[in-house]
Amino acid sequence: MAETDNRAVTPLVSECLDAPGVLRLTMNRPEAFNALSEDLLDALSAAFARAGADASVRVVVLAAAGRAFCAGHDLREMRASPSHDYYRRLFDRCTRMMMAMQKMPQPVIARVQGIATAAGCQLVAMCDLAVAADVARFAVSGVNLGLFCATPGVALSRNLSRKHAMEMLLTGDMIDALQARDRGLVNRVVPADALDAEVARLAASICAKPAAAVAAGKGLFYRQLEMGIEAAYQLAGQTMACNMMDPAALEGVQAFLDKRPPSWGVL
Amino acid sequence: MAETDNRAVTPLVSECLDAPGVLRLTMNRPEAFNALSEDLLDALSAAFARAGADASVRVVVLAAAGRAFCAGHDLREMRASPSHDYYRRLFDRCTRMMMAMQKMPQPVIARVQGIATAAGCQLVAMCDLAVAADVARFAVSGVNLGLFCATPGVALSRNLSRKHAMEMLLTGDMIDALQARDRGLVNRVVPADALDAEVARLAASICAKPAAAVAAGKGLFYRQLEMGIEAAYQLAGQTMACNMMDPAALEGVQAFLDKRPPSWGVL
Amino acid sequence: MAETDNRAVTPLVSECLDAPGVLRLTMNRPEAFNALSEDLLDALSAAFARAGADASVRVVVLAAAGRAFCAGHDLREMRASPSHDYYRRLFDRCTRMMMAMQKMPQPVIARVQGIATAAGCQLVAMCDLAVAADVARFAVSGVNLGLFCATPGVALSRNLSRKHAMEMLLTGDMIDALQARDRGLVNRVVPADALDAEVARLAASICAKPAAAVAAGKGLFYRQLEMGIEAAYQLAGQTMACNMMDPAALEGVQAFLDKRPPSWGVL
Repeated sequence: MAETDNRAVTPLVSECLDAPGVLRLTMNRPEAFNALSEDLLDALSAAFARAGADASVRVVVLAAAGRAFCAGHDLREMRASPSHDYYRRLFDRCTRMMMAMQKMPQPVIARVQGIATAAGCQLVAMCDLAVAADVARFAVSGVNLGLFCATPGVALSRNLSRKHAMEMLLTGDMIDALQARDRGLVNRVVPADALDAEVARLAASICAKPAAAVAAGKGLFYRQLEMGIEAAYQLAGQTMACNMMDPAALEGVQAFLDKRPPSWGVL
Repeated sequence: MAETDNRAVTPLVSECLDAPGVLRLTMNRPEAFNALSEDLLDALSAAFARAGADASVRVVVLAAAGRAFCAGHDLREMRASPSHDYYRRLFDRCTRMMMAMQKMPQPVIARVQGIATAAGCQLVAMCDLAVAADVARFAVSGVNLGLFCATPGVALSRNLSRKHAMEMLLTGDMIDALQARDRGLVNRVVPADALDAEVARLAASICAKPAAAVAAGKGLFYRQLEMGIEAAYQLAGQTMACNMMDPAALEGVQAFLDKRPPSWGVL
Repeated sequence: MAETDNRAVTPLVSECLDAPGVLRLTMNRPEAFNALSEDLLDALSAAFARAGADASVRVVVLAAAGRAFCAGHDLREMRASPSHDYYRRLFDRCTRMMMAMQKMPQPVIARVQGIATAAGCQLVAMCDLAVAADVARFAVSGVNLGLFCATPGVALSRNLSRKHAMEMLLTGDMIDALQARDRGLVNRVVPADALDAEVARLAASICAKPAAAVAAGKGLFYRQLEMGIEAAYQLAGQTMACNMMDPAALEGVQAFLDKRPPSWGVL
């Protein structure tokens, strides 16, 4: 009972509003370096589902309590169930959580304050945007234990060039925040004490845009990446024509022509 | 009549030869920041069609009059016809113009002297090569007006890594010329007064190569990018075997073996 | 007879062990800048086949004798057989050799001590990892002779962003080692006299990981790159579940939980 009470006080994923429309989800297993236990995977999936369905949420910030961002899967839990079938279901469950970030209508910004390893590095790669503290470090380190980071590699190889991704996957070595930025894993690197301000700036920029345009654009972005360029343009043209018929876009363009700010009201 | 005369004097796309074989096409709506009106889209398409069919043209330089390179679609024109059907046709027309650059046999070099935004940034991304003045800046800024740059995103995400592309698309923020170079949007950045010399150097390098090899190579390059690696190699091997049977290649290789310059005559 | 003896003493591809498990294959036509004659292509293919089937080999280092790494195809041989059919078979043979590196279970590290041009640059691009001396330089220079580097372009465009790849293919210009690193063609650049130490460090890091995890991971990496993200995750999840059931992974994870080094014995 005491433990249940305790979990109610500090849920595995805590939610708070950084600003109107900016929902911060904080992974809350600092003592386990926010390892993705089954319960934490479920809590993240539930949080993304709730946020995705909540029209008042404009941006999600994925943050972490404690010194580490996320150390990947919960190895104790994994080791306790040594069956192929269990591992298949576990990785599928993790994949669904990761894909939920990409499929939700709002952009997700990773706020990386510490190390992000294995599936923790995958979390950063799967977010739409990422801001890191200069002390953050990144690795896909499973291979050090004999477990090649295959699923993190799917995300990593869609962020970094292939030789850089392969090097991280084969060596398990850490890269620092500036290397992560230069290779395409994170967007911005700032001193640790400027991390919240930088995330807030990026989130505010997105909140200033109409929600419908952002949602349609994000969805289009990932779909067209998997298409040939002709099919991609076909879909993008459709998306943009629909977007342009939205009252917010018609007003935005009119306001621009009138040299005045758009009067969008609630975005 | 007077207006017709005037347009004959300064056409929407003016053509001149920078050097033998180097055709410069200049977008000529400086007062509108070279916004892509329907007329300018058609003039560009017509110019690319003419250049593509002209064997004396070896390289196309896409340039712009005035302070801006291109500010994207003509918003006044777009706003005046608020129908889904109109927008579909407009974006399709723009896509055909953009794809014409990729499909023509000669390389197209963007000469970017000023800002390139929205579909103007897409123009740069769709050119085979791009040289920018250090004062040039780039954005996909439609989202600032509530119109996500979906079609520019197709081109942008095929030049930049996905997190960098997504950041530009979601924030609408400008990047400067050096950032554009480091992220893969442009090849070279030079001081504004060195822009023509740098473009000329790049164009001359291409003019020194046989036209058939360049045309076959450019076509192969974009086709194989959309294939799996085995199919890509299959097609590339075919292309290269045909290329090697070309008299210019046989002479080029022979000249190399003889340690003399190739006697190619007209390339 | 004397020539036959001589070839037996210095085979076209010599093999030696840099360290236990680290097989160095050295291209051995220094007087021809290691141009890929038919005999050298066959010798490389044979060496990769042998190494791939040898469980004692954990890493392959692809090195070159003399000042150049590899100058591409043997132009004298090519020029001597000017038939389309011959060229098709030659490029197919070269492609099979290149793909053999990607398909073998062990990682292949290019050790680039000098210039790597045309199919020599392709060799670097096709290796899983590459370490270059600071004096190394890279080009896809066939276009200078009228022969567009179509097959090298397949590999190059899967390492570099498309504008950078296109510039190299159209101009034939050299890039230096630091540019090659910044653009994704090589992983690390070191002074020439530190090249062996850096390659050894990278190879030792890979040798410290279980062979089965490395082999499964390398194979998965290239397959998933050609899939949509959902299918990629599906395959990666399967791969990782199988990997986790491997005794080496179960021991590696248990050792981590016990805060002790894994007792893997022979990897």
